Formats: sequence, structure tokens, C-alpha cells
Amino acid sequence: MSADIELGRQKLAWAREHMPVHAALRQRWASTWPLAGITVGVCSHIEAKTGVFVETLAAAGAEVVFTGSEPGSSQDDVVAALNEQDGIVGYARRGISDAELDELHNRALTHRPRFILDDAAELTARMVHQHPELLEGFIGMCEQTTTGIQRIQAMAREGAIRFPAYAVNNTPMKHEFDNIHGTGESSLTNLLQTTNLLLAGKRVVIAGYGDCGLGLATKARSLGARVMVTEIEPRQALRAHMAGFEVGPMAEAAAWGEIFITATGNREVIRGEHFDVMRDGALMANAGHFNVEIDAEALAGRAEEVTEARPGIAEYRTADGRRLHLVAEGRLVNLATPTAMGHPAEVMDTTFAMQAVAACHLVAHAEGLSPGVHAVPDEVDRDVAETRLTTLGIGIDELTESQRRFLESWRIEDIKG
Amino acid sequence: MSADIELGRQKLAWAREHMPVHAALRQRWASTWPLAGITVGVCSHIEAKTGVFVETLAAAGAEVVFTGSEPGSSQDDVVAALNEQDGIVGYARRGISDAELDELHNRALTHRPRFILDDAAELTARMVHQHPELLEGFIGMCEQTTTGIQRIQAMAREGAIRFPAYAVNNTPMKHEFDNIHGTGESSLTNLLQTTNLLLAGKRVVIAGYGDCGLGLATKARSLGARVMVTEIEPRQALRAHMAGFEVGPMAEAAAWGEIFITATGNREVIRGEHFDVMRDGALMANAGHFNVEIDAEALAGRAEEVTEARPGIAEYRTADGRRLHLVAEGRLVNLATPTAMGHPAEVMDTTFAMQAVAACHLVAHAEGLSPGVHAVPDEVDRDVAETRLTTLGIGIDELTESQRRFLESWRIEDIKG
Amino acid sequence: MSADIELGRQKLAWAREHMPVHAALRQRWASTWPLAGITVGVCSHIEAKTGVFVETLAAAGAEVVFTGSEPGSSQDDVVAALNEQDGIVGYARRGISDAELDELHNRALTHRPRFILDDAAELTARMVHQHPELLEGFIGMCEQTTTGIQRIQAMAREGAIRFPAYAVNNTPMKHEFDNIHGTGESSLTNLLQTTNLLLAGKRVVIAGYGDCGLGLATKARSLGARVMVTEIEPRQALRAHMAGFEVGPMAEAAAWGEIFITATGNREVIRGEHFDVMRDGALMANAGHFNVEIDAEALAGRAEEVTEARPGIAEYRTADGRRLHLVAEGRLVNLATPTAMGHPAEVMDTTFAMQAVAACHLVAHAEGLSPGVHAVPDEVDRDVAETRLTTLGIGIDELTESQRRFLESWRIEDIKG
Amino acid sequence: MSADIELGRQKLAWAREHMPVHAALRQRWASTWPLAGITVGVCSHIEAKTGVFVETLAAAGAEVVFTGSEPGSSQDDVVAALNEQDGIVGYARRGISDAELDELHNRALTHRPRFILDDAAELTARMVHQHPELLEGFIGMCEQTTTGIQRIQAMAREGAIRFPAYAVNNTPMKHEFDNIHGTGESSLTNLLQTTNLLLAGKRVVIAGYGDCGLGLATKARSLGARVMVTEIEPRQALRAHMAGFEVGPMAEAAAWGEIFITATGNREVIRGEHFDVMRDGALMANAGHFNVEIDAEALAGRAEEVTEARPGIAEYRTADGRRLHLVAEGRLVNLATPTAMGHPAEVMDTTFAMQAVAACHLVAHAEGLSPGVHAVPDEVDRDVAETRLTTLGIGIDELTESQRRFLESWRIEDIKG
Repeated sequence: MSADIELGRQKLAWAREHMPVHAALRQRWASTWPLAGITVGVCSHIEAKTGVFVETLAAAGAEVVFTGSEPGSSQDDVVAALNEQDGIVGYARRGISDAELDELHNRALTHRPRFILDDAAELTARMVHQHPELLEGFIGMCEQTTTGIQRIQAMAREGAIRFPAYAVNNTPMKHEFDNIHGTGESSLTNLLQTTNLLLAGKRVVIAGYGDCGLGLATKARSLGARVMVTEIEPRQALRAHMAGFEVGPMAEAAAWGEIFITATGNREVIRGEHFDVMRDGALMANAGHFNVEIDAEALAGRAEEVTEARPGIAEYRTADGRRLHLVAEGRLVNLATPTAMGHPAEVMDTTFAMQAVAACHLVAHAEGLSPGVHAVPDEVDRDVAETRLTTLGIGIDELTESQRRFLESWRIEDIKG
Repeated sequence: MSADIELGRQKLAWAREHMPVHAALRQRWASTWPLAGITVGVCSHIEAKTGVFVETLAAAGAEVVFTGSEPGSSQDDVVAALNEQDGIVGYARRGISDAELDELHNRALTHRPRFILDDAAELTARMVHQHPELLEGFIGMCEQTTTGIQRIQAMAREGAIRFPAYAVNNTPMKHEFDNIHGTGESSLTNLLQTTNLLLAGKRVVIAGYGDCGLGLATKARSLGARVMVTEIEPRQALRAHMAGFEVGPMAEAAAWGEIFITATGNREVIRGEHFDVMRDGALMANAGHFNVEIDAEALAGRAEEVTEARPGIAEYRTADGRRLHLVAEGRLVNLATPTAMGHPAEVMDTTFAMQAVAACHLVAHAEGLSPGVHAVPDEVDRDVAETRLTTLGIGIDELTESQRRFLESWRIEDIKG
Repeated sequence: MSADIELGRQKLAWAREHMPVHAALRQRWASTWPLAGITVGVCSHIEAKTGVFVETLAAAGAEVVFTGSEPGSSQDDVVAALNEQDGIVGYARRGISDAELDELHNRALTHRPRFILDDAAELTARMVHQHPELLEGFIGMCEQTTTGIQRIQAMAREGAIRFPAYAVNNTPMKHEFDNIHGTGESSLTNLLQTTNLLLAGKRVVIAGYGDCGLGLATKARSLGARVMVTEIEPRQALRAHMAGFEVGPMAEAAAWGEIFITATGNREVIRGEHFDVMRDGALMANAGHFNVEIDAEALAGRAEEVTEARPGIAEYRTADGRRLHLVAEGRLVNLATPTAMGHPAEVMDTTFAMQAVAACHLVAHAEGLSPGVHAVPDEVDRDVAETRLTTLGIGIDELTESQRRFLESWRIEDIKG
Repeated sequence: MSADIELGRQKLAWAREHMPVHAALRQRWASTWPLAGITVGVCSHIEAKTGVFVETLAAAGAEVVFTGSEPGSSQDDVVAALNEQDGIVGYARRGISDAELDELHNRALTHRPRFILDDAAELTARMVHQHPELLEGFIGMCEQTTTGIQRIQAMAREGAIRFPAYAVNNTPMKHEFDNIHGTGESSLTNLLQTTNLLLAGKRVVIAGYGDCGLGLATKARSLGARVMVTEIEPRQALRAHMAGFEVGPMAEAAAWGEIFITATGNREVIRGEHFDVMRDGALMANAGHFNVEIDAEALAGRAEEVTEARPGIAEYRTADGRRLHLVAEGRLVNLATPTAMGHPAEVMDTTFAMQAVAACHLVAHAEGLSPGVHAVPDEVDRDVAETRLTTLGIGIDELTESQRRFLESWRIEDIKG
């Protein structure tokens, strides 16, 4: 095990070096300790970047208890290297069953976190649903995924929550960078690495044209793929059309594509009727949070034989002799493939910084906030953006007094004079 | 003059052929006449696409009075071909002075419009400021530019307005297509046409990274330019950075660039201190609404001689022997250059459809709306998007019942079961 | 007419300012006069950039006689402004018939040029075919188009020529810049300007994937178009496929496309069988040298009515009610549309510099060259490239002595030692 | 070991499925056996795609003896799964020393190959230099890299070879696909996988703008990087400039870049003087054949400490406290990093098909070929292209008789008539 810890420490050191916003935050909070005395639960993929985030929360004074958000996405060496640090304790393991993940979540909740930094609302939903006694004294939570915000809003509609939540995913600093660039780039990298295939010249179907889908579609095309987008929302569909993508229903796309990547946040986006018309050799992967976007059960139902075509790729052979390939059991392709390492460090630097600064802000302002989902105040987003620009050494312009007045004016002589 | 009318009719016919959403709306309104009996003022660049919009409002039952929004952007032949139609009267002329434009606006207002479809709030501001008597019985207005919404909000802050306004520019269907693609593509086309220069290999500075700036920067780079973006907003600056653009203050960009395009909605974005460090041969153009983004007065103040380098390009020769070029006097480069024709037809089809459908919606719901700026209801935007998809023959997916339930659920067993 | 000359002078001044390689050559040849005493025929589109080229040949000591290469592509004001200069005489006019162009060519040949700088071998073919007496004492020629080189090679195969020719088009400095960037960018600019349509979201067919087609396809896609490429050469087809383009035969493309641009150097690339399956509203333009790529005669044969849809766009209405549009009668879209100005200045700076330097080289080495087509010596190409880099202020690396030795070695110990 | 073989078989099966051109060749040669009775040496990175190539040569009747071309790029499981097949024997192992590689090469040569399919002329150079007795009866060789062709040409200049060689790398079907798309895509994928970093927003320096460099630069930029290119050849430099890249000498680039990738085919492209001005955190990788492009010795000489920052990344800490990172010891980044798998299967399908078909052609025509490097006949290249198009299901146009005549004609009336 000590060798593991060493590798975990090495991974943390590399991540720290490439997460300068976190370094700036640790320096900022070294004396102020904004989370002092609060037990904070972190639920996420526990690998090196999450580790630096956990360390930074501890540096802000929190007692951190962490747990994994997915059975296949945490790294044991990083978990070990975190657990040896003061103020941090956690429960996560790679390659476990759903039941074992349940167990780890429950153990994390025994620490009675008063604040949660969540991924897909996993830990929060479990607390609300199965451990409502913990709601007493619970301050609030921050959520970093589209999926999680949908879930919290569903809870709020049912009156199931009595605490405020910040929709961190909805901030420009989160979804424009993490979703477009982080998911986009790392999903393709991992897909190519796992398959040893080429995007140039390939027919690729992207299901969903939210920020993740936009990133995937844009980057796949820029590497030479021909891309078809499927959507359920007419404006998103037009957005994809105007960006030059083929747009059509999945029934058409299924028969056309060679590679499929789902990023919708919904279930059964590729399902029985679609498998039936796919070409021999079609390959499917998922970039959305849950492993429900590709209907693996229906796929198995059509297969006469399921074999491992390569590590991380299952091959389903249909009765009519076609081979359909599913990557990483339909789990997140940038986290669950054999050599996956999740989002790039620079992206998580910003995403987790948004979570950390939003958490400090919510803790400081919790009393004034009604239960339910709130937008993260603009000043939090701006603060992280300015910190990031500073670490990048990028200067921008400032409004002159004359320009400020101009933006406030509307009378003809003020504008044209 | 009759020859002019013939050319105007030809231009209108070409635009009609390429504005299928307007054709669908005329058909929809042929029996319902949602604007029956209402005098509607239209202020915009009066060329062929605006003409089709005006025709469509008339087909919805309105009495339309139109006027130009800029001294250099209307086309006399189209004006003539509109004025011969029933239910339409207008006042616009190309190449007039600011004073003459004032006069035309005032004449339009003598028709006492009860609704205004405005560009940069030009006609509305004049009515509110100079003809407040017209506010009696005034129903409301729709505004299609960022600049105009800022002005209406400024009026509202001062309590100067008592009617509701729809911020049409802020809808996805407007700003994502009109600003990114319409402004982006047509500004570059007109700039290249006017200069006979090449973008490939050129150093281009884009001031502002809103939707217009994003479109300009992305398309210029895609044609082979190296692009630097200037911004005042840290998140926009980071967005440009992550998209791969050089980002820096104008003081740096001024010394670096060969071509400059402003798209900020603010004034004096390029000014004296910047002219002083520009290279010999630098060329400046504006894609923002008003001709104030480049400080032409300060430029003239530095010039020993001003000549016409080409039709539509003024050359300012500085005391130290540099030649600085200003396109179209700093007016909208896609409207005010000698051969300019404004946005492409397909873009204006959507933009003006948003204006028209939003106008009908506001007229039908005016009583329930408080004075001030309102977001256009989502159903209006969705309606236009669906109409556009239909005209394009693009099909999209629909949520299955199972998917709809999934989006509403949050409990662990509902999501993973 | 004097007003025309003034505009011609202005155009020449603007072009001179943006053709720094020509400025460097004029300086280089100011004392050496490499073309002294030689009458040089120039056949090209006579507009401002060609004018600067003509001036530069005169500055090299030549007596220049110029003529237009196309009935619709020369500009009278530039012709006038050239004809007033010493050592230059020319015959070109805009909007003439083929017969009038013949007449102008014949008048140019009365000056008995001993060297020709040609476009599509127009003047050379006429001399060889109709005025063989001029071959006596004829030194040679330089050709700048793919089409022209094919023609000269065909002449050589038939033994019809007794002089050497340099295939300037085949040099990297010519075809990579002029064809990819010059034709690509300016053809799209002129098409958009003429049609007032949008590329974003459009289905565009590019016929031919040589350098011109590659430039057109790449740039159209980068502006948001979906592009299908047609080819007759399997490797070019694969090249397009790997670059991410749809590839297929014209029979398929014809039914799919909304806009068609030909760039093949061949005739009847779009013909009767293709018109028959096109959509209503389809629009065709040509970027190849001759107006034969789109079979206009077959198109007319299918039309019940032909009208002008816009200046520069003919509308053919078929018996089954479809409207098919042909831009500029199928002539070069970047030269023959109403507001066309040909290639951008920076591109022609390099292309014409290649012609000029190659001409000087051929004149100096004509005795050692056999009749027929020759590759331009690499040193000529390199010379122009270095001059261009100097004018751009771009520095590059030089081989170290150790690197030079490495490139010469092959033994294992030399390479890995 | 048997488990290894199973994984090797799985890898070969996956590669076979994605190499349809090889399947077509095996079918074509099933009865003709064009290499019957010939011992063929294959020197390359021995992983799954090379395995399918080796199998295909055996299917053509050859006795194949293979060996690895690099100490770190072969895979033991694939080697084992090949060695169990009839007609194939080989010597390759991962992670060996240079001396051990020498030994394996020598063992391969004991089989007395009469034909070599080489990578960087490794096996050929050894034979020529150290085992000249094998030249007796040696038929010839095919070479697939730029570097190898340079070496063979150097041998030929010294009169060291008496056999013909086909420069397979120089065919369009090889270098345009393998170098641009194969090296480009897989080098970036492996770099991102190894570093867990993001390209979007990064400053990337590409040394060399041959096909490999062009692919790397284009794809890196398309993922959001800002790219500077260094070159020694003025035309390549201009090509990069016109494509929109920053171009400058390495002395400038070194101080500017965050990530450096070399692809020049030369040595010491990044060397002492460049390390001295690099930023803290700079990261270097190599995509050229030999590990000499980055001067690792000079880098070590500047380091106070060298540690492993991550698997596959060495960190050199300089005396002034900067951390410089070298990926995979400067060996091929797409082959020598911990999880590397080389070029994508579809690319190697074409590359190795060129090698195989060229080998058969050379064997059949060896007698007519002089010693030295020869271009691969165009028919070979066209054959592979047509086979590839067939497997892709892509149809292209054919010349009509009228078009064929047009391309042969040059007289005015033939062309315009």
C-alpha cells in the first residue's frame, strides 16, 4: 500500500502544480478560515484534482469528509494520499458495486456534514431521502452538474428540502469551461485512447447539444469527423444547424453513424429501435453523468454473445451477425475507461474553485436565502474569473468614466453628441 | 425613378424567396390579422429584408409606418417599392445628414404609431424624449439590439417610460443567429469586399467578445487570421482565451494589429492613445450599432491629411508619416460601405420573425405587463424555432414518456433502477 | 474619362501599398534591368494588382503590352491609368464580347512580344495557333494556371511549340497561396456579396478538390456550411474524406446541395442530368478559369423563362416550376460579378512576383532549356518566399552545422551516437 | 504467458476489424501469392496493426521475419500472438536497451531476408553497414518514413547500396494520411492522456511544418490551443503563416510556449540555449522518429535534480528553480508513453497497404530498376486509394468522353466552342 500512497502523492503534486487558482485560494484563506468548524461533505470522482479541491477546503478550515460519486471513477492511490492528511477523511474505492458505493456514502454521512459539495446531487439525495435526521442544522449545498440541479429542483418542487442550494453548474465559469472544454476534450481523448481509432473521416453522432454536446461536436469535427447532432429542443437543434452540423432524429442518426456519444442527461437516448438499424461495427460511448443514456439492457437483449473486444469495450453480437460496441458499460467515457483520468487539471481548477468560493459565500449568507435552488451571485463568478486571469497573466481593459456614462445614457444628444 | 422601383421590387422578390419563415407567418396571419387596426412604427435599415418584414406586418393587419435607423443604411429603391404597397408608408433615404434623419423620424411619428419595432431604440427614444404626447395610448415596443435594450433600461430606471418592452435581442433565436452568424459573416464579407485584402495570415483585433465579437473572431480565425480579443469583462475574456484567442488590453492590441473591428456597444473603444501606437497601414472598421466606437474625431486630430484611399476607406496620414485607414467613417461595416447589403436574408428571416411574433404576443398580452423591459416569453422563441426547422425540413426527437418522468425524478431508485 | 483615370490611379496606389514584394523587386531591379529591351506580353484580368505587376515588369526594363484574359474581368479605369505610363501599352475593356476580346488579343500581338506572361495560355495559344510567324525569336513564357499548363503540355505533345515554358502555377509559392487562399477567400466573399445569402447552415457542393477546391471547401465549412466534395481522382477524394468532407458523385450532390461551386478545370461538370434533380432555389457559381464548368446551354434548354433575379444572378425557371440560379453566367465568380475585384492584393503580390522572377530567370537561362514545359527552379520559389518573409518581418531558424551533418548521415552510430 | 497471448490475439482481432484494406488484399492474394518463397524482413513498432500487416504479407506467400524498430514501442502480447502463426517468426520486446535491440536486429538478419519493409531504414542500414554479405541476392526494400528515405538517399550517394528502394513515405496515400492525421491525432491524444492537461487556451510550439507538423499544429489549434510554428524552410514557414499560425525562430518560441512538440526529423531542435529561456512548467514531447530532436543530454546538464513527475514524464529542476518536463525521454510520444498504442488502425491500414502493395510491385519489377531510391509508381498509390474508397462505400465521378477530350485540347475553338 505505501507504494500506492507514493503514486497518490505524486498525482496530487502534479495536479497542484496545474491548479493555480486553488493555490491562490489557499493563500487567501490561510488566515481567514471561512469554513472553520464546519464539516463539509464532498461527493465526486476522487482523483488527483478532486484531491487538491479537498485539500483547499481543509485549508479553509473545514473538516472534510469525501466519498466517490461513481463506482468506477475513484483512484485508490489518491484516496490513500488524502486520508493521511489532517482534517480530511474519506471513503472511496475503484471498481466497486453499486451496493458498495451505497455503503461508502452511508459511512460518509455518519460524519454528519453540515454542508455538501455534490456531483449529480448523489450525496444530497441520499441524505434527504434516507437520512432526513441530518437535515437538522444542515446549512446548504453546491451542485456542479446539470443533472444534479435538475434533481435538486425536483426535490424542491416536492417540498423535500429546507436548505438553500447554489447551482454552480449554471455559472459561466463552470459550464462554459468544464462542459465545453473539459468534457469535450477529455471524452474524445479517452475514447481514442481506448479504441485506438481515428476521428478523421469518421461519422460521429452526438446526442444532445447542451454545452457538453456542443464541445464534443465542435472538437470531433475539428479533428476531421463528420458530425450529426440529435436534439429534443428546437432552439438547440437550430444552434447546431447554424454551426454547420447535420441535425436529425436518432432514428436517422442510428443508421448513419459509426461512433455515437451521448450527452443529454436523459435515459434511453439510444435504445432498442436504434440498435436494430445500426451498422456492423458501430461503437457507443456516454459522456453524460449516469450510465442510463444508452439502454444497455436492451442491447444485451439483442445479443447472442457478449465478449470483451478490448479492455473497456464490450462487443455485442446480434442475431443478424452485427457487432455493436459499448465503451465502459455506458459509464462516463472520460472517467470509467481503463486508463481514464477525468477532466484536465486546468478545467477542474476553475470548476472546483467555483464550488469552493460558492460554498464560502453560501455559508456566510445562508440566513438570508430561502430553501431551494439559487443562482450563484455574479460576484462569485467574477471573483474566480479575475483570479484565473491573474494566474494566466492576462490583462483586460477597464471602462473609462466616459464609457461608463455612455452605457447609462439613452438620450439622443448623449449618445451621438 | 420607375427603374429604381423595378430594382426595389426585384430585391424584395429575392428576399421573399429566402425568408421562408416570413412566408409561413403571412400564411398563418392571412385570416387572423393579429395587428388589425394598429399603426405600427418600424425603425431599421430599410433594405430588402426589412421590406419583407414590413410587408409581413401589413399582412398581419397593421398600418405600417417605417423610417431608417441610420443615415447611410437605407436603400432608395426598396423604399420606393414599399411605398407603392397598400397599408405601408415610410420615410427613409440613403446618404442623408443626421439632421435629415431627425426630420424623417419626426415625420414618421406624425402617424402616431401605437407600437414600435425598433433598432437601437432610436424611434422610441425620440418619441419619449421629444414627443411625450404620443405616449398616450401607446401599447409597447420590441427591441432587437443590445444597445437598444440598454437604452430602454436606462429610460426605465429614470421612470421615463410607462409601457412594456420586449427584449427581442436577448432571445436565443435572435442573438445567437443574428449576432454570431449575421454580423460575423456579413461584416467580414463587406470588409474584404471594400478593401480587396486577404484575411489569411493577417493580425486581426476584435474589440468585444459578446455574440457579435465571438462571431467575428471565430470566423476571422477560421479564414486564417490570427486574432486578438479585447474585453472589459473577465468572464468574456476567459471565454475568448479558452477558445484559443490571444486576449489583452487595447493598448497592446493597438501596436500588434493590422485590422481592427469593434463590436462593443460602447464609445471610444479605439481612441487617441491607441492611434498613437498603431502600425503604418492599420485599418479600422466598426460592427457595433453606433459610429462612436472608433474615436474618429481624435483620429482626425492626429492627421495632417485625410484622403479617400478607396471608395469607403478614408486614409489619415499622421505627422510621423503613418497611414491609418478608417472604413465607412466608423459606421456599421456591413451596412455603410459602398456595396453593402446588410445581414444575409436567412438571418433576418429569423430576427424579424422574432420581432413580428413578439409584437403580436405583446399586443395580445399588453394589459398584464408592467412598464419596463420584459424577456420575450419562451413560447415565442420556441414557436419561431419550430417554424424555422419546418421550413428547413429538419426533424428532431421528442421526449418519450419514460424520459419525461426521468427528468422529473430525483430519488436514487428512480434514477438508477 | 479623366475621372476614370483618377479612380484607376487610386486603385493602383492601394494595390501598391499592399504588394510589398513587388516594391522589393522594383528596388532590386532599379539598376539591373533584367528585362531590358524585351517586349513582354501580359495576358490577365487587368485590374489594380495586375497593374502593379505590369509596372514592375516595366521597372525591370521591359516594354510591356498587356491584354485582358476574359471578357468580363478587366477594369477600364485601371487600363487607362496604366496606359498613361511610359513603357506600357495595353488593350483591355470590361464587358466585351468574345469577338471583341479576340480583336484585342490580336492587337496586342501586333507588338510582337518575345516573352509572354500568360493566364490559361490564352495569348500563347492564339499566337501558336493563329500567328505562328511570331514564334521566330520568341524566348518563352510563364503560365500561372493549372488550366494553362494543361494546354501548353497538350501543345508540346503535338509538337506545336519550340520554346520553353515555366509552369509557375506548380510552384508551392503560387498554388498553395493563390489557389487555396486567394481563390478560396475571394470566391466566397464575392458569392456572399452578390447573393446576400448566408453560408452558416447551408449545404454547399464543391466540385473538384484541387487546391482551389480545397480552399473553397475548407473555408466554406469553417464559416458554418456543410460541404460535399465531388472528384474524379481517388486520392483527392480520400484527401477530402479524411479532412471530414462528405464525398460523392455529382449525381448525388446535385439532389443534396443548395449552393454549388465548380473548381475542376474541366467542362460540363454540372450538366443536364444534374439540373434535372436539383432543388428549387439551387444556386450555381464557377471558380474555375473557363465558363464551361456549368453547362449553361443545357440549363437554358431546360428553362421556360430566364430572368435577372439580382444583378449578376440569372434565374432559370424550369417546366416543373423550379428556380435554378446561375451566378455571373458561370464565369469566374470572384472576377465577373457586378462588384468583383478578383484576388486579394497580398495573394497577387506573391503570384505575380513568382511570374516576374520566373520570367527574369527564364530569359537569363533560355538557351539551356529544351522546348516544352519546365518546372520553375527551386531557387526562384525560395527567393520569392524569402522576400515575402522579409516584408512580413518573420524570422525563421537556420540549420546548425551539426544538424546539417545529421541530415547527411545514415550510419547507426552517427544517428544515435 | 498464455494470458498475454490471449490479449495479443484480442488486439489483433480488433485491428483486423478496423483494417478493411488489408482484408481486401488478403482476399486478392489468396490465390496469387505474389511473395511466394521470399523471406521478407519487417522492422517496425510491433503492435497490433503491424501484426495485421505481417499476417497479410504471410498471406501473400512470404516467410516473414519481424523485429522492433524502437526499444520502447513493441508489445510483448502481440509479438507472442504473431509468433504462434505459420510462416511468421519475430524478435521484439518492450522496454529493452539499445544493445538488446541491436541483438534482436542481428537475430532477425540471420534469417537472410531478401526484401525489407523498413521503418527509418533501421534494418536496412544495419544490413548494409554490418552484414554486407546479405546484399548478395537481396531484392530491394520499401521505406515508410521521411527519415528513412533521407538515410537511403545518403547511402546511395555514397554508393553503399546496389538494390532499388521504393520511397513509400512520399506517396500521397502515405504521407497525407499517416503523417497529417495519424501522427497528428495520436500524438495529441497520447500527450493529453499522459499529462491530464488541457489544450484549450494553451500556448503550443510545433517545431517543423512538414506533414506531421502541419497535422499537429492544425489539430492542436482546432482544440483551442494557440500555436507557434518554427521552421528552417522559407516556403514551409509561409505556408504556416498563411494558415494562420504564428511563425518564428525557436529562440522566440522557447520563451513563449507552454507545450513543445518536435516533428522535424533533425537533431537538437530544442537545445541548451532554448532550455535556458523556457518558463517554469514547460513541457516537451517529440513526434519525430528518433529521440534526438530534444537535446536530453543538455537538459540533464542543466538539472540539479531529475524526478518522475508522473509515469512517462521526467521533471528536470534547474538551478534557478524552474521545472522543465520531458515526456517519454523524448521518444515518439504516440508510441513510448505508458499507455501508448501508436497510430490509429484506419491510418495504418492504408500505410501498411502501401508498403505491401509496393513490395509486391517492386518484387515483380526489380530487374528493371536501377539501384537507389525510386518513387512508388502512381498505379500502386491509385490502387490502394481505390481499394480504400471501395471499403468506405464512397463513389466518385468518372470523366466523360467529352471531358477527356477537353483536357487534351488547347485550341481556342476546342475550349470555348
